[in-house]
Amino acid sequence: MIYMSETQTASLITHELAYSAVKEALVAAISNEVTLFPVVNASGPQTGSMFSLKSASTSTLVGWKTGTYWPNNHLQNKPCHGTTVFLLSPETGELIAAVASSKVNAYRTAAADAVAVDYLARDDASVLTVFGTGHQAEYEILAISAIRNISRVIVVGRSKTKTDKFIGRLTEKGVSAEAGEAQYGCAQADIIVTATTASEPLFKAHWVKPGTHISAMGADKVGKHELPVELYQHATLFCDYKSQSVVIGEFQHTTNAPITEIGEVITAHSPGRASAEDITVFDSSGIAVQDLFVAARLLELIQ
Amino acid sequence: MIYMSETQTASLITHELAYSAVKEALVAAISNEVTLFPVVNASGPQTGSMFSLKSASTSTLVGWKTGTYWPNNHLQNKPCHGTTVFLLSPETGELIAAVASSKVNAYRTAAADAVAVDYLARDDASVLTVFGTGHQAEYEILAISAIRNISRVIVVGRSKTKTDKFIGRLTEKGVSAEAGEAQYGCAQADIIVTATTASEPLFKAHWVKPGTHISAMGADKVGKHELPVELYQHATLFCDYKSQSVVIGEFQHTTNAPITEIGEVITAHSPGRASAEDITVFDSSGIAVQDLFVAARLLELIQ
Repeated sequence: MIYMSETQTASLITHELAYSAVKEALVAAISNEVTLFPVVNASGPQTGSMFSLKSASTSTLVGWKTGTYWPNNHLQNKPCHGTTVFLLSPETGELIAAVASSKVNAYRTAAADAVAVDYLARDDASVLTVFGTGHQAEYEILAISAIRNISRVIVVGRSKTKTDKFIGRLTEKGVSAEAGEAQYGCAQADIIVTATTASEPLFKAHWVKPGTHISAMGADKVGKHELPVELYQHATLFCDYKSQSVVIGEFQHTTNAPITEIGEVITAHSPGRASAEDITVFDSSGIAVQDLFVAARLLELIQ
Repeated sequence: MIYMSETQTASLITHELAYSAVKEALVAAISNEVTLFPVVNASGPQTGSMFSLKSASTSTLVGWKTGTYWPNNHLQNKPCHGTTVFLLSPETGELIAAVASSKVNAYRTAAADAVAVDYLARDDASVLTVFGTGHQAEYEILAISAIRNISRVIVVGRSKTKTDKFIGRLTEKGVSAEAGEAQYGCAQADIIVTATTASEPLFKAHWVKPGTHISAMGADKVGKHELPVELYQHATLFCDYKSQSVVIGEFQHTTNAPITEIGEVITAHSPGRASAEDITVFDSSGIAVQDLFVAARLLELIQ
């Protein structure tokens, strides 16, 4: 059994590795060989603490991801969220590896949105508006900047203090960004990324200009909601894994709109963006197969 | 993160440790502090391969057990079944340990039946009849022999060859046993243990003599069935965890019979055996809390 520590995986993960592994996973997700099993949402003894077990099997990878959230960890100066990915041998079922993946998880989530941007956003997309000022938003900006020539980043946050701090952090990483309100951010954007915990739409549908691509990553539970449903009447919809997206993802709020899994676009079985005026929406609900593929790549690096 | 290998845990596990930890777990199971989460039954890519995730949380222990079954492993001279137990910190959710528990699992399952024997069988019980000639049956005999002064062991198996082989293995371990048919085995027994994969009752209710204790461990899935339902009309029923026992355990075949969780007997909140003529039946469906407590004890031994 190989254990990769957080220090080890955090030093090995890159946007390139995450992009490549997640793209492969999104293709695997549409094959007949993949099975996603029911998600366990469990709780710990500490008030508000929770953990989840998300398992999957493909022809080459079997395992699960454990996500933990212990809200009081910040009092000890420890991260509240934690992720570990476990791999079983597809040949024998033996435990092969436990891969600490807390930082990796941020890369893999951003990578899914970056893959969607790569396949769905206009080639000349250069203005990126991000809703959200949390940990994940930073990774989203960096992952997408590796895919398109982003000349301008607009950050929309509910709190001015948090937004300013966030822009400060981005500046330290060499990314220039400005604060903006939702309507302005939408009007300027070629690409919109929503990375919030919202349970109500973040903007109005008519604020989004033709040709925009939207990657929504916040919704991963029943009740979460980032996008206005009116948008779906004149947008083309894509997701990572349809049966999950319509239950716990953003598309739990659609009604019978056609939705294409991005793996179909990557493999050219389905068209992506139809025209430069098309509005494309990608919902990333997050699937365990992504975690298995990224963990397997990290393992390869040390073997 | 501490990893305990199979070699390490197999050398540390004893019937005494398993008994003590499982007894503690069976008491914890009836407290308000314990939560068992839905079981994931998943499959691997190999035909017939499967794995399960059984998670639980108590005030002191949080984690899950992964059980694997890869039927072709025997072609490589590897065990088909595998077990690993994972512990999270109840304070922070961090992964504390992965404890390889394949051999340990046999001890912990036998220990639950031994606890039931201890609290429910007559003090003078000395004849043990075991249905089943598999791997688990051996552990059951050894665990129960540590609890009661067993003078005679009768083995009931469907196949004469397997039964003879099994008795040979017992002899090597210093246990003298004889083969017998079901009716004879029941007529002689003070304690009956069923350790089979049966989906039909193994014997007739009227073959069981007054004063017998029965520990049934085979049923852990819908459809499994070892005991005749007629027995329940004149027996007192006990189990590890009622809400699981009546769904996947032996007591899925009862209808409204009163069932007491053994933790209530251990803590003297409920009576156990009412008289020397009482027939007591314990259903062990197997709960994740047992695995967590045993794993925690093994961890203590190396810390």
